[in-house]
Amino acid sequence: MIAFDYCTPTEYVFGPGTETRAGELTKSKLGSKALLVYGGGSAERSGLLGKVRKSLNESGISFSELGGVKPNPTDDLVYKGIEICRHEGIDCVLAVGGGSAIDTAKAIAGGVLYSGDFWDFFAGKTVMEKALPLGVILTIAAAGSEGSGNSVITKLDGEIKISLRTNVLRPRFAIMNPELTESLPQYQTACGITDMMAHIMERYFSNTPDCEVTDRLCEGLLTAIIAEAPKVMADPHDYQARANIMWAGTLAHNGICGCGRQEEWTCHAMEHEISALYGVAHGAGLAVVFPAWMEYVSQYNSDKIIQFGKRVFGVDSAPEAISELRKFYASIGMPLTMKELGVNSPDIELMNTKLHRAKGDVIGNYVPLDAVATAKIYELMSLS
Amino acid sequence: MIAFDYCTPTEYVFGPGTETRAGELTKSKLGSKALLVYGGGSAERSGLLGKVRKSLNESGISFSELGGVKPNPTDDLVYKGIEICRHEGIDCVLAVGGGSAIDTAKAIAGGVLYSGDFWDFFAGKTVMEKALPLGVILTIAAAGSEGSGNSVITKLDGEIKISLRTNVLRPRFAIMNPELTESLPQYQTACGITDMMAHIMERYFSNTPDCEVTDRLCEGLLTAIIAEAPKVMADPHDYQARANIMWAGTLAHNGICGCGRQEEWTCHAMEHEISALYGVAHGAGLAVVFPAWMEYVSQYNSDKIIQFGKRVFGVDSAPEAISELRKFYASIGMPLTMKELGVNSPDIELMNTKLHRAKGDVIGNYVPLDAVATAKIYELMSLS
Repeated sequence: MIAFDYCTPTEYVFGPGTETRAGELTKSKLGSKALLVYGGGSAERSGLLGKVRKSLNESGISFSELGGVKPNPTDDLVYKGIEICRHEGIDCVLAVGGGSAIDTAKAIAGGVLYSGDFWDFFAGKTVMEKALPLGVILTIAAAGSEGSGNSVITKLDGEIKISLRTNVLRPRFAIMNPELTESLPQYQTACGITDMMAHIMERYFSNTPDCEVTDRLCEGLLTAIIAEAPKVMADPHDYQARANIMWAGTLAHNGICGCGRQEEWTCHAMEHEISALYGVAHGAGLAVVFPAWMEYVSQYNSDKIIQFGKRVFGVDSAPEAISELRKFYASIGMPLTMKELGVNSPDIELMNTKLHRAKGDVIGNYVPLDAVATAKIYELMSLS
Repeated sequence: MIAFDYCTPTEYVFGPGTETRAGELTKSKLGSKALLVYGGGSAERSGLLGKVRKSLNESGISFSELGGVKPNPTDDLVYKGIEICRHEGIDCVLAVGGGSAIDTAKAIAGGVLYSGDFWDFFAGKTVMEKALPLGVILTIAAAGSEGSGNSVITKLDGEIKISLRTNVLRPRFAIMNPELTESLPQYQTACGITDMMAHIMERYFSNTPDCEVTDRLCEGLLTAIIAEAPKVMADPHDYQARANIMWAGTLAHNGICGCGRQEEWTCHAMEHEISALYGVAHGAGLAVVFPAWMEYVSQYNSDKIIQFGKRVFGVDSAPEAISELRKFYASIGMPLTMKELGVNSPDIELMNTKLHRAKGDVIGNYVPLDAVATAKIYELMSLS
């Protein structure tokens, strides 16, 4: 274990009907004039947004709205949100949705209090030191943004997708009602499951020695997700399985799985290039990237992959571990190749160039990878 | 899973040398005039208190001191601390030590801002709504008080030992340097290990269905502790094993293992009567109580005990699970009977009467126990 500083101050309010506490929690933890950030149709149609508006009104919170956030959220809406906040004198942000709505809300919350271009934070030109207080009503178990300080935004100009991490952006509260996820399409549920597993594995595949406690937490969460996933796929209205998946998604990414260890994040970086270029679902992209990455790196460093196979799948070798992971992804309807992802002729050279332009000549820690290596991994995904 | 509301705002500052950040963290997170609460000799002799005083001075924090906290801390020192705080105009409390120092500091922090007798909170006469901000420098991995809102105090008059739980008492920060635990006597290290395992098991043995995520977290932590314990027992200076044990002790009790499930706490209540009456180490008492409780309740409800045996020890039955747990306790030098605990003629009737006077006619959820049942469990501990 290496030294760490860990703080996850988010209040998790978990259970049926908790969305009716939006007003009360906004009032006690955020402010009095909110920007409500959300995606679009489903939250409106389901009546969720109506309930949230009612709850805010009842608590005397005034609010403006910014709808229309799309998957792989882009900078244009962030600029728009910042403008609304400044114009209306907004003092807090409330996101309703999944990772895209929350990440947009986070970028707005940080951008409002900064005189320059908010993209400076994502480009690494400056460090975010403050943000408007932020709350979340979660409707998709996937990104883990409800408990993290992360935000991933794509800059339309150049299709650059960048992830920012800062404790300043950790939500003050996260309302989590597993029922709200019951209406998700099965494909999106499966993408969420793949995404949360990747958040754990990006922390798990580490060379930091002597991390038994965190290893076991990661393995335990993965095992639980793999046990609960078939239940939600078989019955989308299985509340208990939804609840387990939802809570696992938060723990996967609120930092608890990364305490005391170096993290990896190569597969996320490689996938970001795929979804930035081809607009595929992030989770589906990860199902393609992760096993290919494991296949490549296990030639050089298989220790942790073997441990993963033993403890999570009960198999003894790296190839078996990778095969079991692929079988699991396939069982929940995830693609295993670029072709299955819907990308018939991937532009490997472009993705690889953008990847290393963003991340440097060599990326990764578990096995450091140069451009030749990452090109090979992109090729592995493109076979068959 | 049942509904829950969970928030653990403590900042964990973990690693070698972190005690030198005491002043900086007190200044940024607590206040400017601190009460320093600690036990006695060892923190002074090791130079730790000197370092903390220096760090406070360098950050311009003025402070008063209250030393002399003893294991199973008592109300007399709490009253003394409250008096000092009021007299000196103290605005925050900093504990240096293990559970006893921290729990004393917590009771003081809550008592200062209350006009009545602080014991009212423990007696359940009133609810604590505020407390002075509190920080911790941990020197014993055991009680988990560094990340919890719990405080256990014994009232000298009547030897009543009561545990209070409130989010108001969660520390703002916890400085955790595993090196500070290297000088602990082996017996105390083993008591700490037993205590943290009990904190997990009190949450794990629950009838709440469909808690796969939290079950796996509990089992993972227990498995990690059982793997790391022999290393610290063999070599007290094994930093990495100490670090794993220390972090496990925090996660065991900061609430993450209890999210979404009904908790148990019968063994803690039964042990509190033993340590209040005979002054034994709490952890050692738990090593005697827990297997006896499991033996008794498994006659009526063995499901979770069988799952525990399978997933933690790789055995198939409840008796084997209990036997493996006893073997583990014995391997780290823990007692298994009242006699081995040093209590040759336990006054079962007195302990049992006090237990039910404090907790009601029937205690526990996993298997509800009346006075006849708990007397039988005390008898099981007193055999051989």
